[in-house]
Amino acid sequence: MNAKTIENLLLDVKENKLPVEEALSILKQLPYQDLGFAKIDHHRELRQGYPEVIYCSGKTVEQVVDIVGVMFHKGSNILGTRATEEMYLAVKEKFPMVEYNKMAKIITLLQKKIQISDSYIVVATGGTSDIPIAEEAAMTAEVFGNKVERIYDVGVAGIHRLFSKLDIIREAKVVIAVAGMEGALASVVGGLVDKPVIAVPTSIGYGANFGGLAALLSMLNSCSSGTAVVNIDNGFGAGYMASMINKL
Amino acid sequence: MNAKTIENLLLDVKENKLPVEEALSILKQLPYQDLGFAKIDHHRELRQGYPEVIYCSGKTVEQVVDIVGVMFHKGSNILGTRATEEMYLAVKEKFPMVEYNKMAKIITLLQKKIQISDSYIVVATGGTSDIPIAEEAAMTAEVFGNKVERIYDVGVAGIHRLFSKLDIIREAKVVIAVAGMEGALASVVGGLVDKPVIAVPTSIGYGANFGGLAALLSMLNSCSSGTAVVNIDNGFGAGYMASMINKL
Amino acid sequence: MNAKTIENLLLDVKENKLPVEEALSILKQLPYQDLGFAKIDHHRELRQGYPEVIYCSGKTVEQVVDIVGVMFHKGSNILGTRATEEMYLAVKEKFPMVEYNKMAKIITLLQKKIQISDSYIVVATGGTSDIPIAEEAAMTAEVFGNKVERIYDVGVAGIHRLFSKLDIIREAKVVIAVAGMEGALASVVGGLVDKPVIAVPTSIGYGANFGGLAALLSMLNSCSSGTAVVNIDNGFGAGYMASMINKL
Amino acid sequence: MNAKTIENLLLDVKENKLPVEEALSILKQLPYQDLGFAKIDHHRELRQGYPEVIYCSGKTVEQVVDIVGVMFHKGSNILGTRATEEMYLAVKEKFPMVEYNKMAKIITLLQKKIQISDSYIVVATGGTSDIPIAEEAAMTAEVFGNKVERIYDVGVAGIHRLFSKLDIIREAKVVIAVAGMEGALASVVGGLVDKPVIAVPTSIGYGANFGGLAALLSMLNSCSSGTAVVNIDNGFGAGYMASMINKL
Amino acid sequence: MNAKTIENLLLDVKENKLPVEEALSILKQLPYQDLGFAKIDHHRELRQGYPEVIYCSGKTVEQVVDIVGVMFHKGSNILGTRATEEMYLAVKEKFPMVEYNKMAKIITLLQKKIQISDSYIVVATGGTSDIPIAEEAAMTAEVFGNKVERIYDVGVAGIHRLFSKLDIIREAKVVIAVAGMEGALASVVGGLVDKPVIAVPTSIGYGANFGGLAALLSMLNSCSSGTAVVNIDNGFGAGYMASMINKL
Amino acid sequence: MNAKTIENLLLDVKENKLPVEEALSILKQLPYQDLGFAKIDHHRELRQGYPEVIYCSGKTVEQVVDIVGVMFHKGSNILGTRATEEMYLAVKEKFPMVEYNKMAKIITLLQKKIQISDSYIVVATGGTSDIPIAEEAAMTAEVFGNKVERIYDVGVAGIHRLFSKLDIIREAKVVIAVAGMEGALASVVGGLVDKPVIAVPTSIGYGANFGGLAALLSMLNSCSSGTAVVNIDNGFGAGYMASMINKL
Amino acid sequence: MNAKTIENLLLDVKENKLPVEEALSILKQLPYQDLGFAKIDHHRELRQGYPEVIYCSGKTVEQVVDIVGVMFHKGSNILGTRATEEMYLAVKEKFPMVEYNKMAKIITLLQKKIQISDSYIVVATGGTSDIPIAEEAAMTAEVFGNKVERIYDVGVAGIHRLFSKLDIIREAKVVIAVAGMEGALASVVGGLVDKPVIAVPTSIGYGANFGGLAALLSMLNSCSSGTAVVNIDNGFGAGYMASMINKL
Amino acid sequence: MNAKTIENLLLDVKENKLPVEEALSILKQLPYQDLGFAKIDHHRELRQGYPEVIYCSGKTVEQVVDIVGVMFHKGSNILGTRATEEMYLAVKEKFPMVEYNKMAKIITLLQKKIQISDSYIVVATGGTSDIPIAEEAAMTAEVFGNKVERIYDVGVAGIHRLFSKLDIIREAKVVIAVAGMEGALASVVGGLVDKPVIAVPTSIGYGANFGGLAALLSMLNSCSSGTAVVNIDNGFGAGYMASMINKL
Repeated sequence: MNAKTIENLLLDVKENKLPVEEALSILKQLPYQDLGFAKIDHHRELRQGYPEVIYCSGKTVEQVVDIVGVMFHKGSNILGTRATEEMYLAVKEKFPMVEYNKMAKIITLLQKKIQISDSYIVVATGGTSDIPIAEEAAMTAEVFGNKVERIYDVGVAGIHRLFSKLDIIREAKVVIAVAGMEGALASVVGGLVDKPVIAVPTSIGYGANFGGLAALLSMLNSCSSGTAVVNIDNGFGAGYMASMINKL
Repeated sequence: MNAKTIENLLLDVKENKLPVEEALSILKQLPYQDLGFAKIDHHRELRQGYPEVIYCSGKTVEQVVDIVGVMFHKGSNILGTRATEEMYLAVKEKFPMVEYNKMAKIITLLQKKIQISDSYIVVATGGTSDIPIAEEAAMTAEVFGNKVERIYDVGVAGIHRLFSKLDIIREAKVVIAVAGMEGALASVVGGLVDKPVIAVPTSIGYGANFGGLAALLSMLNSCSSGTAVVNIDNGFGAGYMASMINKL
Repeated sequence: MNAKTIENLLLDVKENKLPVEEALSILKQLPYQDLGFAKIDHHRELRQGYPEVIYCSGKTVEQVVDIVGVMFHKGSNILGTRATEEMYLAVKEKFPMVEYNKMAKIITLLQKKIQISDSYIVVATGGTSDIPIAEEAAMTAEVFGNKVERIYDVGVAGIHRLFSKLDIIREAKVVIAVAGMEGALASVVGGLVDKPVIAVPTSIGYGANFGGLAALLSMLNSCSSGTAVVNIDNGFGAGYMASMINKL
Repeated sequence: MNAKTIENLLLDVKENKLPVEEALSILKQLPYQDLGFAKIDHHRELRQGYPEVIYCSGKTVEQVVDIVGVMFHKGSNILGTRATEEMYLAVKEKFPMVEYNKMAKIITLLQKKIQISDSYIVVATGGTSDIPIAEEAAMTAEVFGNKVERIYDVGVAGIHRLFSKLDIIREAKVVIAVAGMEGALASVVGGLVDKPVIAVPTSIGYGANFGGLAALLSMLNSCSSGTAVVNIDNGFGAGYMASMINKL
Repeated sequence: MNAKTIENLLLDVKENKLPVEEALSILKQLPYQDLGFAKIDHHRELRQGYPEVIYCSGKTVEQVVDIVGVMFHKGSNILGTRATEEMYLAVKEKFPMVEYNKMAKIITLLQKKIQISDSYIVVATGGTSDIPIAEEAAMTAEVFGNKVERIYDVGVAGIHRLFSKLDIIREAKVVIAVAGMEGALASVVGGLVDKPVIAVPTSIGYGANFGGLAALLSMLNSCSSGTAVVNIDNGFGAGYMASMINKL
Repeated sequence: MNAKTIENLLLDVKENKLPVEEALSILKQLPYQDLGFAKIDHHRELRQGYPEVIYCSGKTVEQVVDIVGVMFHKGSNILGTRATEEMYLAVKEKFPMVEYNKMAKIITLLQKKIQISDSYIVVATGGTSDIPIAEEAAMTAEVFGNKVERIYDVGVAGIHRLFSKLDIIREAKVVIAVAGMEGALASVVGGLVDKPVIAVPTSIGYGANFGGLAALLSMLNSCSSGTAVVNIDNGFGAGYMASMINKL
Repeated sequence: MNAKTIENLLLDVKENKLPVEEALSILKQLPYQDLGFAKIDHHRELRQGYPEVIYCSGKTVEQVVDIVGVMFHKGSNILGTRATEEMYLAVKEKFPMVEYNKMAKIITLLQKKIQISDSYIVVATGGTSDIPIAEEAAMTAEVFGNKVERIYDVGVAGIHRLFSKLDIIREAKVVIAVAGMEGALASVVGGLVDKPVIAVPTSIGYGANFGGLAALLSMLNSCSSGTAVVNIDNGFGAGYMASMINKL
Repeated sequence: MNAKTIENLLLDVKENKLPVEEALSILKQLPYQDLGFAKIDHHRELRQGYPEVIYCSGKTVEQVVDIVGVMFHKGSNILGTRATEEMYLAVKEKFPMVEYNKMAKIITLLQKKIQISDSYIVVATGGTSDIPIAEEAAMTAEVFGNKVERIYDVGVAGIHRLFSKLDIIREAKVVIAVAGMEGALASVVGGLVDKPVIAVPTSIGYGANFGGLAALLSMLNSCSSGTAVVNIDNGFGAGYMASMINKL
């Protein structure tokens, strides 16, 4: 196709339909389009209803409001992660339809209807303290158009809680296992299901937990095959990856 | 179905078709089947042609030969990872049809025809030293019935090599990015494709590489969304996970 | 016993005392009970006076009050660890009989009389700064029905203080050694007594202490046999483990 | 008793039965006996059949043979851990009755009958590669007079294997959980039994396992109460601690 | 020259123009001057317009004001890094011409005209959060008399942004690459340009970023030649080093 | 002497000057005295003017005031390290003669004249930010009766500053080198003097300094012989050790 | 220039001098050339006499011989780093003119005369054990056409050795400071010269050196401005970077 | 003295006894002598019988033989640390009077009588495996002219062994405490004696010992004052430092 475009351009030059200067100016922009960089940049909006994402942490309240404004006027759905309540309130003043999930620290401003998948993603947590990260993953997946089943507080210290939900977990297309402490949930789930498991270590714990390092190493060393790991507390990354897989 | 089985059993008891003792003995075995554990155990063989896997590292030559023997007589396809040449030769003596990929340290003994997927997995490496781990991933995926495209030595120090293969990479259903040193390949690939990327840090490097830690941390902190990470040098895990995703 | 229950159920079905549907519904719940999960879940209450435990850290004040409420109405004794004074005051408003140990950050709400063991647990500390963690261990053990002897500030910098208490330490059934800094107390105690020693590293220290890592590694490498270690600052875990051993 | 001894000595001095010089010389040795040091030193032999332990690692073959010789002539049972085959053969030349467990790297030379406990210790492993460390623990416990049940290769990647042994595990007085990789076995076992669990991380694994660090941190951060941890690969320490608990 | 000075002195002594005592006293001070220490101390002022630098972090407001005062009266240009707004305001009260870059936390007080180089330094960042450190580098370089081109937010997650600036980057004499997260920018830039690259890891990130360690290790292990690294967040050091190189 | 005491006691018993009960009660206290523990406990006061030390960090204001009170009434000189201003003010209310060095965070309450040594200790620092730790070392040494020479801000970035003080440093009996950042001062000083050097790493620095780890490792690996290291920021420990050496 | 090429091509098409198919085929290769990738790829050979580099570590002897062969036939100068003696001998068999520096583990095969710079690079080491890494740096720089002055064994333990070479060091255009142990050389040199210093930590040391980590952290935290650091033992990287700077 | 030398030189110039050129040439070498560098270099030989030290590790056999040769012909006593048996044999061939301590890996070649101190150094170890490092310390101290008392295998697992040697330890002028595992010996000794303690962590241990890190951190965090630490396994450094202190 692209080659075709160039061929046509050359033919136009040959046939004097296109001045050399103009052809030159078109060709000078080709490389990036040819490489598809623009696709990367804009591919989300191209597909209807896809959200744009703001990682709010480390940005000022004003910056967040400004970025939301720009995206809003493009008509995009907007997902803001790690947003403080202060940010939410500032955005709300200008865009009253914005919504805030305090636990997940997520702002959403939906202008277009989201298509929801038939297959679903399970988001499971070891404890209740892992829920904020799990919610970040779950909401990210939902805003990207995935059906999500939440199965919280099913850690291995009381493994029967996990077993009572096994049917739902096994029917999922992909599973996100969120756990702090020793992060054993990922291994146990990985051993019980035959689907890709995305493991999210959380920084929940103390002492020799070292800010989530214990769970991270545990998950990376999982003896269950079919598990891959994202950064500590990276609920967004897990939700995004799971969405990619669920949409395949 | 299972509930149906129990119902029938109860009806049989009620109608005196089944003695209570016999029913009791059947019911005592129910829990595990009901939980589906057996499924886990045997699900691979149930699907035709699926291989059984032996992690050979840390096993003696005799143990490997014995396990191959057991699997062979079940008629399974067999995949042995991290196998030494000595192991291969010992297996070959008994099972002459076994094959060995010296670079990937993989033994394969295929008794059934493998169904190959239409969609494919890309396995890319940063350097030539990462190829053994990449081969472990690629062969694992192939033995599990996936089509694999190998794109080796496309690290970021000469990024044009990567760009010349972008078309093939973008058409894959899932990408495995294998890299040592600073592991930047995963981030760059993650930024260029719209498919799940499984990042495999390798232990290639020296000094402040700390046995692959540099690449591991780099990949976990990737600023590109849609990337998840497996353990250092865990080609098998990446191949297995990619196979799961590709087969969805 | 459990087999007996199923046998009776089958007999009831056979003799038409129990409709098949009802039997089916009972049997569907069996697996977990058969596996004993329920035992895990409820075993504490089954034994008279056993407390239920709330790990308050990371929970909101409201969550703590709610959980206490649920447990209170089951008639349980309640132990809340890592509770802030604010949590205590909020609980007190609803349950005036609650008590608070500010140093140990422990809430207790005892509705049933606790049976106290004859044998006792020694809780020893290296310094005075280790006492909060030691109190967490000691109170946990006490609420679980153990006699506890506290021997504080007997660190190795003035080892004669430890020796003057040796008789009491040696008569204990199990010893908890709580120490920060270099954590040498565990090794010295381990070398002097012929009983299991549970070592608790604390985060007391500075500089190359790295938040308790120095004491943790020291205790894990103890040259004295008969010592095992819990997480840094995990007084509750040590008290719980010691209680298990003391009750054997 | 000791006070009695001193009183008698003083009376003997008073009654001129004992010269002052002799009394002085006796009293000068008192402190250590009074502090019970001698008890520490010799307490094992005092109880019939108790073994003496040699940590062979880092000793020369000659040193091991010499130490065995000294112990043998005291009539002690002897346990040598981390012994090489070369050490075993050298010892065997002089003491043909010595036995060697090659997997556990343990030498035993038993001259007295060992009394075996009624209650038993369970030694469980996650994988087959953990068995050498498990055997070190099990044989240590056995030589110290404990009944041991071995339950190997019941890791969480196939958790039904563990469940099928739950009855035996739950009847134990104390459980030793030996696991490498991510070490999740300890948490799962800890959540299923109501007995003290001694967790032994092993150095089995690769990459981000960092020589057992992953399993160690995982076990220290276990969300299951009633678990304490010994050093990586410290099977002897776990067996010794379990023996202490089982003998209470 | 220096040898000449001594020779003259000796001639003066020989010719009785200089008393021995005086010559002795002069010679006793020689070593430091001979070694050039004084040059080190004062060399910046010797070259016209060179700034003096204050590292404000860890100093009190009063100390900063005092040091600025001393430098001001020497007529120097002054650069204060890591200065708080409070420091700026206190300095401003006494020296109203002082300027403050809030983002870079830099105070400048320029009394002499700075000569600007023809060749330029590129300062590039991966994300917007890296800009404060980049500004510290850029302003340092500028105050030292270098032309600087800022190219911000060109991280590898959207690599086309970087390519669109490649011409400007390639014409620089030296490039400063500032990046947090996984720090891949340095490797990619290093692979694209044929000039020295100074890599500045930033502490931007979370979880397994470990305060910039991920980016630091990534940059140290860069597979691109021609890259050297400064401390995490050390914008000043990078600016200073780049200035040295640009001025060669 | 001690043996003599026992001999006399025995003679007294023999000669009926001392009842057996009384002798027994005296002898029961002997062990600790015989082992010299009491010496340890009280040896500081025994030597005239020696201070008692309070490590104030982690203690409450009330605890500090109480301990000062007890020490004061024994007539001791008192040294309180890591004391907050609030602690100082609270102590001052009761003991107006107390003095406070705000920079060193040291409280002193001297009731007896301190004997000052002839030989002296040099306390040198790399930068000005290291001075608080250096003052803790210097004041500790002074209160223990040592003459101290302070040589501050002589770090290796401007090594001529150090050389200009070399004479004073070389005449010291022991040198304390206090430095943060890369801690090179200790090596350079160790290479220039022929006296014991006590190196104190400080937590001054940022980024890859890791809270003083860089300086600590640097000092432990010093290529200069005659250097030993104390914990990060442990000025007191260095002052105490230097005092011990200076008083030999 | 490049735009000119395209313009000419278009004119040729227009004027029928170039068939459309041929033009298309040329244009399809444009992107990379336009982006300058080819420059990167081939720029070294373009400048006369520039060497091609082989990082031999991790390659087989055959691979090294093959790569040398390819390069040789392009007429390039060849630099092989981290080459074993075995590799050298194998290469020599085919290319007898190859030379080997055993200490630096460097193979050179020079077919074109190298132009040597007027300005020079100083390569300094702390000890004699650092010389192999220093030689790797020095030879790399030399093969790239730089004059190099070696100043070895001038570590800070005997700082006068360094001072006696200060004149030569100060006249260099760039300094490479190679040191293991505590790596203080970089800071001291950085404080004495007014030129860019490239610090190379080596893995020389033991114990708390942790394979060069001590020197690495020390150099990253250098209190001397104008210093940047390469990976542990990365002599090649330092030589390459210094060459880039020296050639500016 | 030095000033006198210069004065005389000036007088000679003045009185024409010395040509200006010659005086100039002498003065040009002055700086280093004036700074006393030469003293550093040669001070050991200046004092009668002082040994020269060779750190043999990382040197070739030939290098060691050569260095010994140079030192021998200066008439020095020679101490070679970390020498292999092969080195010893090669030296012996040329200098038959050389002696070798295989355990300490120390070569000594004494040509002058060593003056032995009256006061003594105690070298104590925790276990028998620490003895090689202890011997390195002890022999270093002895060759430097110190009387040494060895007290080996007195670790805290059997603390009575230490107490039985307390008299000898307390009479020492300085104590070297050598220990691996958890390194508690240093703290216990530091709490029992009133003399400077030099702590030497050894790499003896396994698992979470991390090559001596556990003992190192333990010793740095010692709660006993008067302790300073040298690098892991640095027996020579401890012996040198102790010698410095003992000779004060």
